[in-house]
Amino acid sequence: MTIVEKYLVIHGPNLNLLGTREPEVYGTVSLQEINEKLRLSADKYGVKLVILQSNSEGEIIDILHQHRDAKGIIINPAAYSHYSIAIHDAIKAINVPTVEVHLSNIYGREEFRRHSVVSPACIGQISGFGYLSYLLALEALMSSDK
Amino acid sequence: MTIVEKYLVIHGPNLNLLGTREPEVYGTVSLQEINEKLRLSADKYGVKLVILQSNSEGEIIDILHQHRDAKGIIINPAAYSHYSIAIHDAIKAINVPTVEVHLSNIYGREEFRRHSVVSPACIGQISGFGYLSYLLALEALMSSDK
Amino acid sequence: MTIVEKYLVIHGPNLNLLGTREPEVYGTVSLQEINEKLRLSADKYGVKLVILQSNSEGEIIDILHQHRDAKGIIINPAAYSHYSIAIHDAIKAINVPTVEVHLSNIYGREEFRRHSVVSPACIGQISGFGYLSYLLALEALMSSDK
Amino acid sequence: MTIVEKYLVIHGPNLNLLGTREPEVYGTVSLQEINEKLRLSADKYGVKLVILQSNSEGEIIDILHQHRDAKGIIINPAAYSHYSIAIHDAIKAINVPTVEVHLSNIYGREEFRRHSVVSPACIGQISGFGYLSYLLALEALMSSDK
Amino acid sequence: MTIVEKYLVIHGPNLNLLGTREPEVYGTVSLQEINEKLRLSADKYGVKLVILQSNSEGEIIDILHQHRDAKGIIINPAAYSHYSIAIHDAIKAINVPTVEVHLSNIYGREEFRRHSVVSPACIGQISGFGYLSYLLALEALMSSDK
Amino acid sequence: MTIVEKYLVIHGPNLNLLGTREPEVYGTVSLQEINEKLRLSADKYGVKLVILQSNSEGEIIDILHQHRDAKGIIINPAAYSHYSIAIHDAIKAINVPTVEVHLSNIYGREEFRRHSVVSPACIGQISGFGYLSYLLALEALMSSDK
Amino acid sequence: MTIVEKYLVIHGPNLNLLGTREPEVYGTVSLQEINEKLRLSADKYGVKLVILQSNSEGEIIDILHQHRDAKGIIINPAAYSHYSIAIHDAIKAINVPTVEVHLSNIYGREEFRRHSVVSPACIGQISGFGYLSYLLALEALMSSDK
Amino acid sequence: MTIVEKYLVIHGPNLNLLGTREPEVYGTVSLQEINEKLRLSADKYGVKLVILQSNSEGEIIDILHQHRDAKGIIINPAAYSHYSIAIHDAIKAINVPTVEVHLSNIYGREEFRRHSVVSPACIGQISGFGYLSYLLALEALMSSDK
Amino acid sequence: MTIVEKYLVIHGPNLNLLGTREPEVYGTVSLQEINEKLRLSADKYGVKLVILQSNSEGEIIDILHQHRDAKGIIINPAAYSHYSIAIHDAIKAINVPTVEVHLSNIYGREEFRRHSVVSPACIGQISGFGYLSYLLALEALMSSDK
Amino acid sequence: MTIVEKYLVIHGPNLNLLGTREPEVYGTVSLQEINEKLRLSADKYGVKLVILQSNSEGEIIDILHQHRDAKGIIINPAAYSHYSIAIHDAIKAINVPTVEVHLSNIYGREEFRRHSVVSPACIGQISGFGYLSYLLALEALMSSDK
Amino acid sequence: MTIVEKYLVIHGPNLNLLGTREPEVYGTVSLQEINEKLRLSADKYGVKLVILQSNSEGEIIDILHQHRDAKGIIINPAAYSHYSIAIHDAIKAINVPTVEVHLSNIYGREEFRRHSVVSPACIGQISGFGYLSYLLALEALMSSDK
Amino acid sequence: MTIVEKYLVIHGPNLNLLGTREPEVYGTVSLQEINEKLRLSADKYGVKLVILQSNSEGEIIDILHQHRDAKGIIINPAAYSHYSIAIHDAIKAINVPTVEVHLSNIYGREEFRRHSVVSPACIGQISGFGYLSYLLALEALMSSDK
Repeated sequence: MTIVEKYLVIHGPNLNLLGTREPEVYGTVSLQEINEKLRLSADKYGVKLVILQSNSEGEIIDILHQHRDAKGIIINPAAYSHYSIAIHDAIKAINVPTVEVHLSNIYGREEFRRHSVVSPACIGQISGFGYLSYLLALEALMSSDK
Repeated sequence: MTIVEKYLVIHGPNLNLLGTREPEVYGTVSLQEINEKLRLSADKYGVKLVILQSNSEGEIIDILHQHRDAKGIIINPAAYSHYSIAIHDAIKAINVPTVEVHLSNIYGREEFRRHSVVSPACIGQISGFGYLSYLLALEALMSSDK
Repeated sequence: MTIVEKYLVIHGPNLNLLGTREPEVYGTVSLQEINEKLRLSADKYGVKLVILQSNSEGEIIDILHQHRDAKGIIINPAAYSHYSIAIHDAIKAINVPTVEVHLSNIYGREEFRRHSVVSPACIGQISGFGYLSYLLALEALMSSDK
Repeated sequence: MTIVEKYLVIHGPNLNLLGTREPEVYGTVSLQEINEKLRLSADKYGVKLVILQSNSEGEIIDILHQHRDAKGIIINPAAYSHYSIAIHDAIKAINVPTVEVHLSNIYGREEFRRHSVVSPACIGQISGFGYLSYLLALEALMSSDK
Repeated sequence: MTIVEKYLVIHGPNLNLLGTREPEVYGTVSLQEINEKLRLSADKYGVKLVILQSNSEGEIIDILHQHRDAKGIIINPAAYSHYSIAIHDAIKAINVPTVEVHLSNIYGREEFRRHSVVSPACIGQISGFGYLSYLLALEALMSSDK
Repeated sequence: MTIVEKYLVIHGPNLNLLGTREPEVYGTVSLQEINEKLRLSADKYGVKLVILQSNSEGEIIDILHQHRDAKGIIINPAAYSHYSIAIHDAIKAINVPTVEVHLSNIYGREEFRRHSVVSPACIGQISGFGYLSYLLALEALMSSDK
Repeated sequence: MTIVEKYLVIHGPNLNLLGTREPEVYGTVSLQEINEKLRLSADKYGVKLVILQSNSEGEIIDILHQHRDAKGIIINPAAYSHYSIAIHDAIKAINVPTVEVHLSNIYGREEFRRHSVVSPACIGQISGFGYLSYLLALEALMSSDK
Repeated sequence: MTIVEKYLVIHGPNLNLLGTREPEVYGTVSLQEINEKLRLSADKYGVKLVILQSNSEGEIIDILHQHRDAKGIIINPAAYSHYSIAIHDAIKAINVPTVEVHLSNIYGREEFRRHSVVSPACIGQISGFGYLSYLLALEALMSSDK
Repeated sequence: MTIVEKYLVIHGPNLNLLGTREPEVYGTVSLQEINEKLRLSADKYGVKLVILQSNSEGEIIDILHQHRDAKGIIINPAAYSHYSIAIHDAIKAINVPTVEVHLSNIYGREEFRRHSVVSPACIGQISGFGYLSYLLALEALMSSDK
Repeated sequence: MTIVEKYLVIHGPNLNLLGTREPEVYGTVSLQEINEKLRLSADKYGVKLVILQSNSEGEIIDILHQHRDAKGIIINPAAYSHYSIAIHDAIKAINVPTVEVHLSNIYGREEFRRHSVVSPACIGQISGFGYLSYLLALEALMSSDK
Repeated sequence: MTIVEKYLVIHGPNLNLLGTREPEVYGTVSLQEINEKLRLSADKYGVKLVILQSNSEGEIIDILHQHRDAKGIIINPAAYSHYSIAIHDAIKAINVPTVEVHLSNIYGREEFRRHSVVSPACIGQISGFGYLSYLLALEALMSSDK
Repeated sequence: MTIVEKYLVIHGPNLNLLGTREPEVYGTVSLQEINEKLRLSADKYGVKLVILQSNSEGEIIDILHQHRDAKGIIINPAAYSHYSIAIHDAIKAINVPTVEVHLSNIYGREEFRRHSVVSPACIGQISGFGYLSYLLALEALMSSDK
């Protein structure tokens, strides 16, 4: 019997509005469409994805704790990137390889978006490629696992 | 058949304790009394108010999303004013005219209270007039709608 | 014999050009039109308005001193908001309830406009509602006087 | 009939993982073990402890509000220490003597952990003694009550 | 009938003392001599110069407003360069091409002189060439008009 | 024939309100009383005092220029101390020994009052002794002239 | 006749020593091995790679200019990331989609490595995955071209 | 024969005036009374206390060196907390477990008191409990020794 | 029997070298000469002076404590002005009116000399008048005592 | 025999792309066209121009050294303006009058472009007039030489 | 057969002009004279010196790489000291003991010269002794090798 | 009769513990051993050494004053390097050539150790070579005296 490995994808605050929210910044692809692309990709790799979205910092920490048996995590902390030391601590606490992703290139935006307190707790960061950021992150996790 | 327009009022963290909390700073009027004044005023304008209080940043974002069909929003982000980029993003994401209010004049208080990260996402700000801040905000929304 | 109460309105530097000055930021309403709206409103409240505009910091201080018998003051310090400690001191010195107003939401503009040194001397601040900022300020003074 | 006095203990985000989380920083004692030691100590003092853990900033504020009848509070705000002005405000709002504790010496760690925005709202702070920080805090509350 | 185009030259605070004021920094040429050279140059271009000096920030703003029919402006804001957001706003408000000049190289002097808040409102800046800075500025305005 | 030496005393913005303005900070002595004490003292030294008050930065600069034949200057720049580089420049330009005075100890007040940009242009500073600050300044000028 | 599209890969300063240089930070894979992996990948996509390494900021700018006919660029600016505004300008000047890559997670290292002045000129950034960062960048360029 | 373990208590500058010095901040308990409470407590633990007070930074360093055979140290560095890197170095140099104590909650006071350069060299910090801070520190040292 | 009132004069570090030390900054008057002038002046006022010099921060604090029965204190903290919070605390602790003096105008010197941490604990400050600074300080203490 | 005086013109990084590079910022005039205008102007003055462009900081320094016999230098350091202390040093080392020019008004652009470390080594700066900046600089050098 | 050990000496930008460049800062000794002194000293130690000067950051990195078989390196990074993270990285990458030297005492000069980003990669630093700095550095390398 | 020249060596705070204090940072050589090496070296030069160690800032200043007849001084200010403006002033006051030494490379350690306020008063600095730093400093003083 084969055990299918689990990977966790966390979408942070306001990402549920994707597609309708400031499309000139975040594009017109909806969160559902991104999730479908992610599942398609996961199927190819033969792994299982748990995909969750939350607007609550505390809930995101809870999710990270509950899925600490995952083989890898993809997280888009959105606005929390810039101040949530608590999410930083949660990632370090569970000790699962985590990739931080951003749809837009946060380094080309407002000053306050150019600093992520979550980054130092992650193994790497991918930003600026829209939904592709997620797919590349999954690929990165797949490759670094081998 | 007339459709009554909906306006959202959000009271941020610790405002549920109003009237008993540091009365020398925040006054002795309770949140319930403010809400009654607001409803009275809304009745005059012939609009409907949804009034909610939450101590949770995530819940405030959820509320903003759920009521994105409102014609206007009055928000007192209280302590979250000073760091919640997530609430800033939520207001920008739903694209509803929003007025930030504060009971006290935050510019005359501690250094850390003099900066609001929420303000740039709002159309305007009213601070320092106690419960009147809310009533003026409603009036501002009424006037700028016409 | 009834004594009509006096309120002072001070328009700071460059506001005399209103209507023609950067209309995409400050709107197309002229200063004269704002003053008319203010007088209309004052008539309703049965109070007298002294309305003055000056481009000079020193003159604004002189005006504040000369009208220290006013029951309340509405001031739009414009550019002086950001550095005139002398106007701050004048407001504190005369000890008359003063409301700071801004036509635009100064918190959504250039970094150097996001800080007002005049604010801590005022009872409150209203910004972002165009000419309405002034009317709401008058209303605030009326209400807080009672 | 004697009324047993109530004291509140709040464990902040990620503390539920204690014992397994970065043991080289936080030690190998689990949260349950700390709670047992606390209860043992409370029994000696003849007081009742309400002990709660939450990863959510909003929930921590709710807890503080609900237990504002406590005689004293011990709080380990963990990561929230460094930015939660909302928790700071909650402690000030309920006006119960509160002691801030930390397992590790936060002043010997990363720069961003060396500043607590919660501290100014507390009566004192104890940090660096592992689980003992909690026990000393309880003792401090017992002594300053008399 | 030919209409002679008008250009405005504004000398800021303390420039009336030129020639006697710290000659090791500002040279020995008097303001009158500079003005003569400017008029000579203007005659060659067939344009009319209005040349004014003022030590008052408010008066400089008044002058800018009064001459908003000028084809171009040369301004040496002197000390006001470093903090007068009001002059910055006046230049933007009247929307006339303006060149900022300085006699000395302000970037080689005290730290507080190395930043001009007026510059962003101007089309360009010329500094360090003594009276020549003014003549080059006039030439720049002449050329960029064509 | 003896020529009586002239000394200039300049009172900056809001000092005309002295005695009534925030007496807990600035004392109850009026400006007129200070001036009388100064004249009494000047008489003893056999020198002539020109005493002027202005709320206008530009006017203060004009005064400094007009009295550049004075043997010494006492200036209380009040709020302008903290940002008027133009007054700093005026003092340097006229090259007359100038003493900066303050009624209150500005180093024991708000952060923004603890820095004077005017000081580096003066020979010395006396602050914190109420009206006595002025008398000591006159004495300092008398002594350092000999 | 098919024209094979050209992509440019630039390795910045000190990357020629890869494999021997601080292997605990940068890994043991040599630059040659990375290039081979890149070429293999490019072959699959049917595109041509020009791969260059330089320790010179000026040379990197020259290379960017010379290959401005490329369809996309992958650049690891290494140390130049942190201060080379000139490389930033070069990328903006040639207007070719560029991806910034880093072998290590620069956000988890020394403070001075956590800021890239090159990022705002790029479409996105991938950091922390060793040689894989390059391969993912190529994939990102391939996908965003379609 | 039992050897009684030695513990060192160091009171920093101005603590000799305790009881009379700013009692609204530091309380009315004298240093002698604190020392008596400490000795009483030490007797219970069966350990010996060496208690010293000094206003001199150098002397405090000498004391630390002379008593490097102590089993533990309690230090209230008072004002030196905020800048004495030399005391920090002395504590690290002698390698004895040291607890930093403060009578008042230094985090609720002036900005310059909110940072201790001594803390990183200590095992922990206790502040805000008056004399009790010392007793808790002794207890902490007792417990962490076992 | 008349009791002669005592006043304390403290000269801080390196002032013992006065007259020989950097005479272009500190003048050629020796400390002994300053003390003689001070005693002469004290004789006129009929008060007794205790004059002490020390290079040691701790000793200066000791002196302040020992002479807390003085009616007033003149202190030139010299280099300690810029960082000795301990001397600041000592002055506040003994609660004797203290005047801070400086020979040179510290606000016209190196950046690090423009800030005094001792000032906020003093009633006033006199700087820039050489030995006269001390005499004026004595006069200030005499006058403010009456 | 007349010796024709030599002047050096240095175009810094990315200026070779002028005309095609971000034309909305830098205009559509090519570098070759600017050089032609410069040569035409030089011919009128009867001087010889050496015009060089380089993307390399080191090469720009080499050029400055090699042409230290020039009578004057015009340099557009472009991006290097903002950090090349080495170019600053080179200009000071060769001691030839140098004018810094910029095509655009760098003070009206991104924050990081508002500071030039090269300026303090130059006699003056001209910015914001497109190619005219160069011509005015040549004129400035011609005039200040006489 | 004896193998003579190689040591590398790198002179950074503008050092080729030594002797003529700002002699009041850098002295009148030419680079050639320094090199002769260095070779004389090397002969005594029986080691071989490779001495190179470059104005190019990239070339300096190339030189460091090419001579990574040296037993020790002396580098005067001159202006590059203050910003070249790339040279810092090159020194760390080649892992050869390197001493940073400066002719002048960089800590007694302009603010921007007081910080070296190269220092942390070196084993030590010698500055302020003119050409002697180099000779002492060689001696240091000789001694620390044994 | 030959007079032997005197040189002063001052070891700052905590250096008396050398050899036992954090040997991984400061090495295992004791202060006595360093002093022996220094005396050996001094004998070769035929000069006399006065070597003193003190943990007290004031005492170090006293020592500097007492030995102002020395021909040169070597000082390791240790922790005082980072804040003792008083020692800086003492060195400037006595006007004896002084070399600052450090055992470790302070630029490769904690942020707060990377800045020395003592350096600007010294002729040069040598850091990072253990005891050799002292010997090189002596050699530097010997050479620069000739």
